[in-house]
Amino acid sequence: MRGTVLYGPGDIRFEERETPKIIEPTDAVLRIAATCVCGSDLWPYRGLQPIDGPTPMGHEYCGFIEEVGRAVKSVKPGQFVVGSFAASDNTCAHCRYGYPSSCEHREFMLRAQAPFLRVPLADGTLVSTPGGVPSDDLVPSLLTASDVLGTGWFAADAANVKPGSTVAVVGDGAVGLLGVLSAKQMGAKPIIAMSRHESRQKLAREFGATDIVTERGDEGVARIKELTNGVGADSVLECVGTQESMMQAINAARKGGYVSYVGVPHDVELNGEMLFFSHVHLHGGPAPVRRYLPELIKLVLNKKINPGKVFDLTLPLDQVAEGYRAMDQRRAIKTQLRP
Amino acid sequence: MRGTVLYGPGDIRFEERETPKIIEPTDAVLRIAATCVCGSDLWPYRGLQPIDGPTPMGHEYCGFIEEVGRAVKSVKPGQFVVGSFAASDNTCAHCRYGYPSSCEHREFMLRAQAPFLRVPLADGTLVSTPGGVPSDDLVPSLLTASDVLGTGWFAADAANVKPGSTVAVVGDGAVGLLGVLSAKQMGAKPIIAMSRHESRQKLAREFGATDIVTERGDEGVARIKELTNGVGADSVLECVGTQESMMQAINAARKGGYVSYVGVPHDVELNGEMLFFSHVHLHGGPAPVRRYLPELIKLVLNKKINPGKVFDLTLPLDQVAEGYRAMDQRRAIKTQLRP
Repeated sequence: MRGTVLYGPGDIRFEERETPKIIEPTDAVLRIAATCVCGSDLWPYRGLQPIDGPTPMGHEYCGFIEEVGRAVKSVKPGQFVVGSFAASDNTCAHCRYGYPSSCEHREFMLRAQAPFLRVPLADGTLVSTPGGVPSDDLVPSLLTASDVLGTGWFAADAANVKPGSTVAVVGDGAVGLLGVLSAKQMGAKPIIAMSRHESRQKLAREFGATDIVTERGDEGVARIKELTNGVGADSVLECVGTQESMMQAINAARKGGYVSYVGVPHDVELNGEMLFFSHVHLHGGPAPVRRYLPELIKLVLNKKINPGKVFDLTLPLDQVAEGYRAMDQRRAIKTQLRP
Repeated sequence: MRGTVLYGPGDIRFEERETPKIIEPTDAVLRIAATCVCGSDLWPYRGLQPIDGPTPMGHEYCGFIEEVGRAVKSVKPGQFVVGSFAASDNTCAHCRYGYPSSCEHREFMLRAQAPFLRVPLADGTLVSTPGGVPSDDLVPSLLTASDVLGTGWFAADAANVKPGSTVAVVGDGAVGLLGVLSAKQMGAKPIIAMSRHESRQKLAREFGATDIVTERGDEGVARIKELTNGVGADSVLECVGTQESMMQAINAARKGGYVSYVGVPHDVELNGEMLFFSHVHLHGGPAPVRRYLPELIKLVLNKKINPGKVFDLTLPLDQVAEGYRAMDQRRAIKTQLRP
């Protein structure tokens, strides 16, 4: 088969690779229905994160079970499944506490932008869609559950969003936009999206944002204070991962408020004394997507949410290089790839 | 009157100062029944925190209302009261959300090591003891509610301690020891105290510690992992405020666990990526003592807790300099001062 490989900054190739097969008895091999490009893929694509030679890419996926190892019990060939970007056994203590993305046996998925994918720990990682194979129009939304929706959902959950919470979302990438959707689904109001891009503002509003703040830095914080009776937001979802966005989020929260952060922080240092007097709750990390998958799949199948709208570009998988380029140049919010 | 003034490193004087009087109509003046030396007083005493000329000291207090301003409604002369180290209006949004120590009108108390003390925002700051003036043997425990107990209590609360939580406490100063007492009161088990000092270990056990860990750094973390089935603690209370103690706390928590920090961090920088993959919840700041005061006063009056045991040295107020010396040299855990 051919699959996606990053050779260096800006150099994505779709080239011959070995077709994956069962290695461990707990593995499954999927035939990919849809995969996509993640904001986090852009860090190495832009040369901002070093790679160690040619690197297969992709960690968001859904599709059909092609084959399972002899120890796999919960899924079988022909089923349609969604899995987390982090494989987990779903039985260790960390998994039982709700943090499968810190599973003792965690393996980050790394080769999903391809027609076939080996998934380790299949029983703990994959969730099949109830009611059989879903209709194709639901596939994009199901795909989001694998990472970008699950991560936006975690952003809202980790920021303690409840009915009536005042929410601000820092970052208008796909994760931030789905953070807006998640906060809406959890009953928050107002939901303030920080965005300077018209197309993203529009989608944020569709997903439930009640207010848009275009200012950044101190001015952005001042606007959020204005929109929250001078107090600051109950919950702030930090969906970027830079020093600037983290400080924006912390400063926008009220005293005793909640700040979540869900993108790997790049060169972020938080001063202890600043954090102390900010008085915020802080929680984040790799999203425990597996915990949320059953609920998110159900919400998609019942058409309560339509997170697949974040894909404003869909390409055949072999045009993956253009998919990266479009996101890098901000011509696309998020690129879906179909084999 | 004479009061306590810090002139420079190691130089505490008890010298003539103006007797406080009502300035604002919302003020009260107290006749101090007991005050004490705080671990945080040792930072400037040791020259580790600069002072701007001679500095009056003290922020923990309880005593009798001597006089109130004309706007004060909730307390009256003759009553016995305990107040927070941070004066608050108890009506602003931050107060209503439970964070009076970040009150819009917050004033840190700074002159309590004296026979008389002006307390601003008396209605929002002071809580009188129900049932009239308490017996003198309860005064030390009531005094602790003003800061050190309230701070230990916040450490446990902010670390999400619940019945059955596994708890580790970093720091065997008075705050850490009362963090142990608080965790015990909240139903935690086991409660692991990190301490190398025999007298403090003994008091930790009296307060409810089930295990003592004397190791620090990676070895200390390994011991806590051993004591928590290899998982890490649900809740870790960081009661020191250094880089080392913060990292100790974060590393001792389980994935998805809770870390609180209640001492002003000195030269602490938390790396974003480290924090992200630690997966912990982090919450701290100046303890919202005023929120807890009614409950803590009740627990003391009903003799459910005896936090006054942290005072292993009691001196007449005019010997305050010796009180600082004894704590600095770790001859005393905490010094009570009686006018």
